[in-house]
Amino acid sequence: MKTPQATLITIGDELLIGQTIDTNSAYIAQQLNLLGIWVRKRVAVGDNREEILRALREESLQSSLLILTGGLGPTADDITKPLLCEYFGGTLVRQPAILSHIQNLFEKVYKRPGELLERNKKQADVPDNCRVLHNPGGTAPGMLFVKEGVTYISLPGVPREMKDIMQTAVIPWLTEHMERPFLAHQTILTCGIGESLLAERLSDFESSLPQHIKLAYLPNYGMVKLRLTASSDTPSALLEELQMLKEQLCILTAAYLVADQDISMEELIGQLLQKKKWTVATAESCTGGLIAHQLSTVPGASAYFKGAVVCYANDCKENVLGVSKNILEQKGAVSEETVIEMVKAVVHLMKSDVGLAVSGIMGPAGGTPEKPVGTVFIAVSDGQKVQSHRLQLGFDRSRNTQQTALFALNLLRKFLVSG
Amino acid sequence: MKTPQATLITIGDELLIGQTIDTNSAYIAQQLNLLGIWVRKRVAVGDNREEILRALREESLQSSLLILTGGLGPTADDITKPLLCEYFGGTLVRQPAILSHIQNLFEKVYKRPGELLERNKKQADVPDNCRVLHNPGGTAPGMLFVKEGVTYISLPGVPREMKDIMQTAVIPWLTEHMERPFLAHQTILTCGIGESLLAERLSDFESSLPQHIKLAYLPNYGMVKLRLTASSDTPSALLEELQMLKEQLCILTAAYLVADQDISMEELIGQLLQKKKWTVATAESCTGGLIAHQLSTVPGASAYFKGAVVCYANDCKENVLGVSKNILEQKGAVSEETVIEMVKAVVHLMKSDVGLAVSGIMGPAGGTPEKPVGTVFIAVSDGQKVQSHRLQLGFDRSRNTQQTALFALNLLRKFLVSG
Repeated sequence: MKTPQATLITIGDELLIGQTIDTNSAYIAQQLNLLGIWVRKRVAVGDNREEILRALREESLQSSLLILTGGLGPTADDITKPLLCEYFGGTLVRQPAILSHIQNLFEKVYKRPGELLERNKKQADVPDNCRVLHNPGGTAPGMLFVKEGVTYISLPGVPREMKDIMQTAVIPWLTEHMERPFLAHQTILTCGIGESLLAERLSDFESSLPQHIKLAYLPNYGMVKLRLTASSDTPSALLEELQMLKEQLCILTAAYLVADQDISMEELIGQLLQKKKWTVATAESCTGGLIAHQLSTVPGASAYFKGAVVCYANDCKENVLGVSKNILEQKGAVSEETVIEMVKAVVHLMKSDVGLAVSGIMGPAGGTPEKPVGTVFIAVSDGQKVQSHRLQLGFDRSRNTQQTALFALNLLRKFLVSG
Repeated sequence: MKTPQATLITIGDELLIGQTIDTNSAYIAQQLNLLGIWVRKRVAVGDNREEILRALREESLQSSLLILTGGLGPTADDITKPLLCEYFGGTLVRQPAILSHIQNLFEKVYKRPGELLERNKKQADVPDNCRVLHNPGGTAPGMLFVKEGVTYISLPGVPREMKDIMQTAVIPWLTEHMERPFLAHQTILTCGIGESLLAERLSDFESSLPQHIKLAYLPNYGMVKLRLTASSDTPSALLEELQMLKEQLCILTAAYLVADQDISMEELIGQLLQKKKWTVATAESCTGGLIAHQLSTVPGASAYFKGAVVCYANDCKENVLGVSKNILEQKGAVSEETVIEMVKAVVHLMKSDVGLAVSGIMGPAGGTPEKPVGTVFIAVSDGQKVQSHRLQLGFDRSRNTQQTALFALNLLRKFLVSG
């Protein structure tokens, strides 16, 4: 069976002037990919009638599914819906069910009952020849059209609303109506090795893969995810084959393997801590609280995350954590001795089972010949055993900070696995 | 003078399977826009010869500038460069200057002298009929071609490298060689009002704008930026006209105005603190350190940011900050009384001039009928005066956290401006 081909079309001047980063396309592509639909092209055009019509015409020649996002908001220039009417030969009609949903949102959710404007009411107008896709948390409904064997789906550009409609309406519809091959995926997560070295290491493995199984390298915030995708019309034995190949992949990448599943570093650390019934706390200087924030993003983190002391200023390392003045003066705030004192202090102060401490120079200023910008010290400790590590990073302030947080979390992970 | 039209073409399967979010296009669009070049379309295609050639042919009919990113990395399937040779009629030649730059990077920057592989050396191969654009921090050089009045620029997909080449080579070249009208921008930042209400409030202003001045609404992490763009062949008097219109815009949005310039909330708070010679510290529960991290992202933040206590667990609110057990038991960890004690304690502990404290329930679990998910208390204090605020948010965990950080920073900003 041929894999169906799709084009994603994003509408809106805000994408062309570069003030909005398009996260929608990545999400939709990911969802379609999991369903076994291949996105062959993504296109972004402005709020411009001719450009939108040209994109619809051109792309419907190559793809059997077109998903449009954007151009439906209350400040949009009212181009998209009349244009869809013209393209599909329909008429705009105000739908009472959608209107009352919008009224309800303004009253109950937005708590702005008096504020329903004509431009908000207009969002209840839809072409009479489309299938309406309900938008539970927003005012602009999605729309689905089928014309000459091509399916067109138009969704609002607000990411949360787009995702709601994808999950509750689009994916179920595509699952039922689109013919596609059976697909299966297996993902592992690696850390500490670059994409090109990884590719070199895996080149024999990759070239020995059967035709129906592909390996993808997915760089992910300083880590690399490896994903095996198998497609077949006859799913039997496919899952077993994929599992075996994943196990080979785990062996080949063992020194860098973080997880043999599709999981984030924070989630994995949460699982390891909960298995040990341990709690964690952080003491952060240069990362300013980023590591703590990342740990806290996992729902249920309060079961194992105690808290953090962010001691950005030197006096706060001394006053709050009790790092000795001697060490700060002789070894410096960015030193192995300081992070070791910091980690011991935070474990004691927060009464946690394990602690993580970082101190470094993120740039652009603050470097010295001995400790240039990018110098970072990390320590992890359970109150008894201490492990420390020195990093030398070479990026800009923002990426140095992200990388420091990642290395620190990876050091904590190794400590939890080995300890 | 007609505004030149550009198309951005992004190459790489990783964009089509949705594992990479395309931040490059937004950056390039923004830079071109500032130069007075209009991006009429963005296209993403896979590592697929036919699709790339079709995109080059189709887009060169409509745009006089095509910027390609991606498809040049060491694990790329070697499609892009041979294809460019075919399209422009050139031959791949290994350039000694680029090769020695790559060797130098591996030795001096990556500190991996022994690791230069053939796939890395191949990055020094470029078509002999292109202008090479030096990539100071990376191995894949940019390339520039001119064919039948259309300029083609090919850049690596790594954001940092792409930005380097844009700044040091592409923008200077375009400034010199591209005819374009004079453009000027003025931007203001608002917070606390949605895009549609803002558009309603500004509809008279917007419709009274002269033909050559446009207003753009740019939603930005829960805030809205408003940008006026003026274009003209005769720049005299344009800047004055734009300044006057910006002042009108500031008056019309006064209740929500954060800044009359293009600046982030964190940078603005940094400026306000430095003007007052004040320092700040935060006490965070539900945001887990996000506010501290945001304050620390500004270079030079150590001049005014002392640090933070992240007290995610209740016992740490008591042990580290000394919030009274009575208040925690009777009023709860998420209460006005608790955040007030938190903010007073953190100002005292960190010896800062002003403090900011937040406590809330971010979801998905943890809500009660009295304090449902999305309930947040914020307090700001200089040790004497205290201001507190209750929020009721209705988003998911991640967005609730982002919004809480933003509201808290805005409350701090107002306190600094008024106090």
